[in-house]
Amino acid sequence: MFELLKTDGKARRGMFTTPHGIAETPVFMNVGTIGAIKGAVAAEELHGLGTQIELSNTYHLHLRPGENIVKELGGLHKFMGWDGPILTDSGGFQIFSLAKLRKITEEGVTFRSHIDGARISMSPEDSMRIQSFLGSDIAMAFDECVEIPSPPEYMRQAAERTARWLGRCVDEIASLNSRSGATNPGQVLFGINQGGIDKALRIEHMQQIARYDLAGYAIGGLAVGETSQQMYDTIEAVEPYMPSDKPRYLMGVGTPENIVEAVGRGVDFFDCVMPARNGRHGKFYTKHGVLNIKNEQYERDDRPIDEECGCPVCRMHSRAYIRHLFKAGEMLAMRFGVLHNLWYYNELMARIRNAIDEGHYEEFKSDFYKNDCFKISSCNKR
Amino acid sequence: MFELLKTDGKARRGMFTTPHGIAETPVFMNVGTIGAIKGAVAAEELHGLGTQIELSNTYHLHLRPGENIVKELGGLHKFMGWDGPILTDSGGFQIFSLAKLRKITEEGVTFRSHIDGARISMSPEDSMRIQSFLGSDIAMAFDECVEIPSPPEYMRQAAERTARWLGRCVDEIASLNSRSGATNPGQVLFGINQGGIDKALRIEHMQQIARYDLAGYAIGGLAVGETSQQMYDTIEAVEPYMPSDKPRYLMGVGTPENIVEAVGRGVDFFDCVMPARNGRHGKFYTKHGVLNIKNEQYERDDRPIDEECGCPVCRMHSRAYIRHLFKAGEMLAMRFGVLHNLWYYNELMARIRNAIDEGHYEEFKSDFYKNDCFKISSCNKR
Repeated sequence: MFELLKTDGKARRGMFTTPHGIAETPVFMNVGTIGAIKGAVAAEELHGLGTQIELSNTYHLHLRPGENIVKELGGLHKFMGWDGPILTDSGGFQIFSLAKLRKITEEGVTFRSHIDGARISMSPEDSMRIQSFLGSDIAMAFDECVEIPSPPEYMRQAAERTARWLGRCVDEIASLNSRSGATNPGQVLFGINQGGIDKALRIEHMQQIARYDLAGYAIGGLAVGETSQQMYDTIEAVEPYMPSDKPRYLMGVGTPENIVEAVGRGVDFFDCVMPARNGRHGKFYTKHGVLNIKNEQYERDDRPIDEECGCPVCRMHSRAYIRHLFKAGEMLAMRFGVLHNLWYYNELMARIRNAIDEGHYEEFKSDFYKNDCFKISSCNKR
Repeated sequence: MFELLKTDGKARRGMFTTPHGIAETPVFMNVGTIGAIKGAVAAEELHGLGTQIELSNTYHLHLRPGENIVKELGGLHKFMGWDGPILTDSGGFQIFSLAKLRKITEEGVTFRSHIDGARISMSPEDSMRIQSFLGSDIAMAFDECVEIPSPPEYMRQAAERTARWLGRCVDEIASLNSRSGATNPGQVLFGINQGGIDKALRIEHMQQIARYDLAGYAIGGLAVGETSQQMYDTIEAVEPYMPSDKPRYLMGVGTPENIVEAVGRGVDFFDCVMPARNGRHGKFYTKHGVLNIKNEQYERDDRPIDEECGCPVCRMHSRAYIRHLFKAGEMLAMRFGVLHNLWYYNELMARIRNAIDEGHYEEFKSDFYKNDCFKISSCNKR
């Protein structure tokens, strides 16, 4: 499934084959939580934005419309109109971050829906069944996410439980794939490494889950409150223990800077709601820093958001017009923000891949720090 | 500017030429109030929906971003990215329906902005200047709108004032067009007939404004509370007094049924926010009635909204998926509603034009009543 094409330092160029096509790595997955990209972007528009993999959420789709309906209608690809690869997360992170009154036992988790308070149980087997019904190309193992910081003993218990749950996920997905009528019998499973920022625990847990011959391995439970440096240190610690012939996925990360740093530490897959969310709030990523289009300085600016950008928004519209749409509260403003920022992220990944192909990743990084700048909260030009 | 190609009973096929291209009539103008179609549809997508004329609002654009900015950026066409014909209304109707504390004198109207309460004055000359700065192809005369019912004496006073204001609009637009640096020197003026549902007053007022050799004549002040039959009767009364070599525009109308009836009474131009608004609320127009996609019956329905429809939504997505998007509150749902309904309206106009071309308008009407059905509040199939 995964072919490692080239390395440049720790950075890796690869190719991941799924039943719905190939993804060139490093890749940023575009998030369509509930089977739709937020900001009024339809699935059929994703190819035009450079999207390679779409990511949807098991927790959300289980609540609405329910996996039975999606399966009955031919699976998530057909349901949402996206013919490329799909990864579904397991629900673990959303139960941790969204659901109320969760109670975790060895069997699984019970919680209340964030929508209507309905009581729901989800076990590793349930998560696998839901993902199998959805028919994603990559299913994620059901894991227990913990806050950072958490007591070390609890952190260890959660990591050990996640390892035991992985065994159940492996058995369940094999059984589901062998059933006639499986939505996507070629669906594969990625395991999730946990352990907070405790390096020894991360390594120990990684060694446990690497025993299963999985299609890929994720680093979960990061970007939940630790510093970027703690995140990078954790990746550096655990990476040597991740199988080199399998893709590595850093879940829920992150800023362009985070991605550039993590690629340099051997990560292949990323996802984050940030580009779409920031776009909906008028923060546009460019090769010259982040542009907050609501600023008054753009009121009469007839240039595109980024003169070097080839996205559908920059080809057609001025900063002044887009600012006007944001000030007037027009939905079109949010769509423009999402279209542009997804394009930027996907194009950043293409630049990253190109740099690795040419063996210039360090040079690329240095240029990236000189030009692109993404500390939205603090700077407009590094 | 207007060429009358053919008549079929009272129904007329025509061609209206503007500095930004030709509109085949009867035509439905697609409303982009503040320089954007609500529901996240960009101007560059309108040609693909069959749009011939875009309509924007002087009142809204005056408040935000202001006509000076739009002019400085090259006019409304360039500002919003639409290269086809644009009609701007005069602000009269929005002052009547949206603004607060309005005070009407012979000079003009003072009112408070519905956004921030700012005190604003608008005279006929102001309205012309704003529309000239915006650079629309068709400017509308500044009129005084009144409620139906209103006291007859007030109705008469308002109609007479609207006629006097028209003279000032005619002078002002001629002066504005002759200035160097005019945004769109080929901009033309349509007059607006008023008089409520008082037929004698309507006719008298029409005779007054027909004395000016204007590019077109609108029937304003309808669809504000009277019955459809009263509206049809008013059109029938005034139509013989409208110059037959100029287009007739029924402002703010209406349902597909209203349009079909009004075309049969000699009207050429229409506009209404209804298709986009209903689309954003999940009501989809089809050749077999109105489909309320939120209904549970569509939960597992894998057919498109309308199997005969060629719109971008029906070509790609199922009722079940679109219903899911509405239930989940996804912005994409609203975009789909607008795309489909604008397509429906534009395609209805193409069917109307085709029927007149072929001299089958009565037959078309009869088929329309047998198939299409649009009483959203009451029926799903007539």
